[in-house]
Amino acid sequence: MNFRLINKVLGYILLVEAGCLLAPLLVALYYREDDWLSFTLVAVLCAVLGFALSRLPAGPNDLMQGRDGYMAVALAWLSLSAFGALPYVISGAVPHYVDALFETVSGFTTTGATILTEIEHLPRGILFWRAETQWLSGMGVLVMFLALMPKLGGGSVHLMRAESPGPIKSKLVPKVGQTAKILYAIYMSLTAAETVALRAAGMGWYDAVTHAFTTMATGGFSVRNASIAAYPSPAVVWIITGFTFLAGVNFSLLYAAIRGHWRQVWRSQELRLYTALILGATLLVCLDLFVQTGARLSESFTEAAFHVVTVMTTTGYAIGDFALWPTFSRVALVALMFIGACAGSTAGGVKVSRVLIHFKNLRRDLARIIHPKHISVITMDGETVDEGVVASSHSFLVAYVVVLVAGTLIVGWDNLGLEESFTASMTCISNVGPALGRLGPAGNFSILSHLSKIVLSLEMLMGRLELLPILVLLNPATWRDR
Amino acid sequence: MNFRLINKVLGYILLVEAGCLLAPLLVALYYREDDWLSFTLVAVLCAVLGFALSRLPAGPNDLMQGRDGYMAVALAWLSLSAFGALPYVISGAVPHYVDALFETVSGFTTTGATILTEIEHLPRGILFWRAETQWLSGMGVLVMFLALMPKLGGGSVHLMRAESPGPIKSKLVPKVGQTAKILYAIYMSLTAAETVALRAAGMGWYDAVTHAFTTMATGGFSVRNASIAAYPSPAVVWIITGFTFLAGVNFSLLYAAIRGHWRQVWRSQELRLYTALILGATLLVCLDLFVQTGARLSESFTEAAFHVVTVMTTTGYAIGDFALWPTFSRVALVALMFIGACAGSTAGGVKVSRVLIHFKNLRRDLARIIHPKHISVITMDGETVDEGVVASSHSFLVAYVVVLVAGTLIVGWDNLGLEESFTASMTCISNVGPALGRLGPAGNFSILSHLSKIVLSLEMLMGRLELLPILVLLNPATWRDR
Repeated sequence: MNFRLINKVLGYILLVEAGCLLAPLLVALYYREDDWLSFTLVAVLCAVLGFALSRLPAGPNDLMQGRDGYMAVALAWLSLSAFGALPYVISGAVPHYVDALFETVSGFTTTGATILTEIEHLPRGILFWRAETQWLSGMGVLVMFLALMPKLGGGSVHLMRAESPGPIKSKLVPKVGQTAKILYAIYMSLTAAETVALRAAGMGWYDAVTHAFTTMATGGFSVRNASIAAYPSPAVVWIITGFTFLAGVNFSLLYAAIRGHWRQVWRSQELRLYTALILGATLLVCLDLFVQTGARLSESFTEAAFHVVTVMTTTGYAIGDFALWPTFSRVALVALMFIGACAGSTAGGVKVSRVLIHFKNLRRDLARIIHPKHISVITMDGETVDEGVVASSHSFLVAYVVVLVAGTLIVGWDNLGLEESFTASMTCISNVGPALGRLGPAGNFSILSHLSKIVLSLEMLMGRLELLPILVLLNPATWRDR
Repeated sequence: MNFRLINKVLGYILLVEAGCLLAPLLVALYYREDDWLSFTLVAVLCAVLGFALSRLPAGPNDLMQGRDGYMAVALAWLSLSAFGALPYVISGAVPHYVDALFETVSGFTTTGATILTEIEHLPRGILFWRAETQWLSGMGVLVMFLALMPKLGGGSVHLMRAESPGPIKSKLVPKVGQTAKILYAIYMSLTAAETVALRAAGMGWYDAVTHAFTTMATGGFSVRNASIAAYPSPAVVWIITGFTFLAGVNFSLLYAAIRGHWRQVWRSQELRLYTALILGATLLVCLDLFVQTGARLSESFTEAAFHVVTVMTTTGYAIGDFALWPTFSRVALVALMFIGACAGSTAGGVKVSRVLIHFKNLRRDLARIIHPKHISVITMDGETVDEGVVASSHSFLVAYVVVLVAGTLIVGWDNLGLEESFTASMTCISNVGPALGRLGPAGNFSILSHLSKIVLSLEMLMGRLELLPILVLLNPATWRDR
């Protein structure tokens, strides 16, 4: 483990955070609200610490290895969250640090679960910071850092690998820095496009920007208590549905689409399954709502489509209280939370491509019974999937289920219902946001104990970083190996 | 697919069923109850059909392959259940065939979920048959058949493989027939011992025999409405706890213990983890009950130990209504349902040894990050686990989760709660018996729709046969391959 290099990365990341705190500072100054001071203090703190860490001398032959990448990513996200929580506490918006940490982790991991009982009374600087944390980390904080300063040396690919979601890590172009720039260019363009579209649909600029931030990050924080239900315009609902869907697509496919490589987009098995699941789930949930709730068909369709898309992309906006839906629809939402959207998108969950690998491995196992001597490889979009990737998908699934169950057990001590405990754990590890019951869209996570909030924060980080960085951090063997 | 051989196996199995129907026939005659006629009719039907099928000519070079074994086992269990349900309908005990099929599948798969609302009013022959279905199939129907007539030719090992639970299939002794005989000898001795112990603890002979049947099979059907709570004796509770624990141990370890090979027993990682999980879960549940329900510590301990053991061994007896337990304890029970007991026992669930393989694979994946070039194998009790076994455990887990979720979705249409739908699916695929909510120990499955009952019956079969035989049966590729 090369802690000199890791400390350097942490230093740069804190400098990035200091810079990012200038945005809510400007918002606070613009609206003449007194939370500007908290942003100034924390920005200075991050800048000083970051500067000190980044100046630490690195050895002449320091090269980042895979394990260093995982460790750096885990520590970077923990530091970002630890310092990012301070403005909430200093400004008095969230009095207790554990609550502020939960809210910040929920932001940086683009989860969107909240402990706030009353959102609209908070200063606009704080709410801007809350939305910005999601946007910043949607595409990956270290990816952004690589886009800004790509000169970390030969090992920077390990940072990107450790942070980017999905079973198969690929670069769009040979250079890591160039890949990071392309990803951010697409991300920023879509955010700008959505802001304009929401403004045109009648939102104010402030609401439009913050919602574009949390849509494209598949985060789901809203500046309104009622989430998207606060905007009665159907245009807003469908604009958000559309951009949320796009945010759940692998950005390398968006890049291919921009370059006109439609064949590549069309033959993506992951995109097809993602689309098919959204259409299928929308149809079934729509029928269930229509039959069981007495709503009109068009209402049922809008409710179903909006929530299926925002839940499967792990965004978690609401235009109604899906915690009150009939059982089939609730179970379907929980299943979609588990699956999540595409690899290489800003979404959480297990990812559609991993689900595909799991199914292909199962099919291969069945085929082996019929033809025992036939040896076959698993392919995806015509390319062979390495057996190491299949094995990692296996351990990923196991770790995911173990963390999910362990989280449910610990939240269970709070003695909420089984449905509430289980979906709280599920929504946090999959970075969705709302759970069911009292933790659903109409409720919030403030009723949980501090222990549960800390455990769920850890689950959010584990889910966002796809478990390995946090497991590497928590593994005693890592620390024995100096 | 060799259907001549498969039909022959089906014929023999029906002959075995005809023979087994003589036991409840004798019970009915002994108690002079008029359900004797239904057993006579069905026994004759099975005998005639079985005789006809077993006389079909087999080709001179017929040898059973792996796929034939899976297909034969799937069809054998379906036939057993289809005919085994008839006495319930003919005697009038269960008017509707779907209900009778559910009850019979629940019996043969040693699940113990019931659609009966009133048990004690039923004739004793019917209740004996209900308990006997569990006992018959606890150790495997085809294993019994191989113990009775081992001369099926060289391929009979495939029948045993397809039916016996656990990731690694091993024979106790080189000969299949001999292995089957040893397994049944242990099984029968334990059943006899438990019968005597229960009789000594104050049960009548009829109750003692039927409960010994359903204990050793980890089935859980009781002849009393209140299950084990009907017997106020603490001795009965602890006798059943002890024998249930033994029934969840790998029978090859019981064989080793009988021969005095204690070293082998002691170093079994599966047995250690199984015991540790039971002790740990008992302790935590006991504390949860003590703190949250106001029960005395000794009561909490008995309740916790009894239910942890019967749920983890997928037996499902009750001495209280665990559906009313606090959330942590309910979640713990559901997690234990998922895990199940040891491979090579009569229990269901994923099996402790598969859980071990999953964890070892995860640990290997983490170690690979720290030492990328280190290649390692997974070992169990000092022996290398084949990578094919690891891959199969992966597909098993995936298929298990998919069936579990699909079952929850379909049961969800009945619009019970999410907790009830999910645990109904879980209890059936893991062959436990009671679920939670209205499907808990105090309730029953009669409130479900016919569709749900059929789906849950299929899940019980899938769980008992560890998915592959049923997946082979349902796989279109199997049928294309003649």
